[in-house]
Amino acid sequence: MPTIVVDVMPKSELLDPQGKAVSGAFARTGVTAFSDVRIGKRFELTVDGEVTDAVLAEARRVAEEVLSNAVIEDVIGVEVAE
Amino acid sequence: MPTIVVDVMPKSELLDPQGKAVSGAFARTGVTAFSDVRIGKRFELTVDGEVTDAVLAEARRVAEEVLSNAVIEDVIGVEVAE
Repeated sequence: MPTIVVDVMPKSELLDPQGKAVSGAFARTGVTAFSDVRIGKRFELTVDGEVTDAVLAEARRVAEEVLSNAVIEDVIGVEVAE
Repeated sequence: MPTIVVDVMPKSELLDPQGKAVSGAFARTGVTAFSDVRIGKRFELTVDGEVTDAVLAEARRVAEEVLSNAVIEDVIGVEVAE
């Protein structure tokens, strides 16, 4: 069955305490390859039938209205997984 | 600066209570297009220099050992974002 993937990330102008914590853990454990870490969410929406334009529009709507908080997060992707 | 994206999802054989809650909210609010919802994490690791094979290998290692819990989660992707 097709899956629509919605990616949500904290807005880039906001601090991301979770990401900062992981970044700090990297520094303490000798992982130096990554200068920053940000942590967001990945939603997999299973579609029963075909992914029509209407279904994709509905996914975009719920991504903005239900799955993310527009005050602190951006929806960075709504895509049909191959 | 290049970014490596790590996607982590709950193992498919496990219940995902967060996803079930969203799925229930969809049902209650008349969103019928999606039969299942699963919620995972998306990590963006910023790389200061070039993404060499060593950096990518390090990303794969921390994805398995630090960013995910192998008991309940699968790392489903470690990719350089375009």
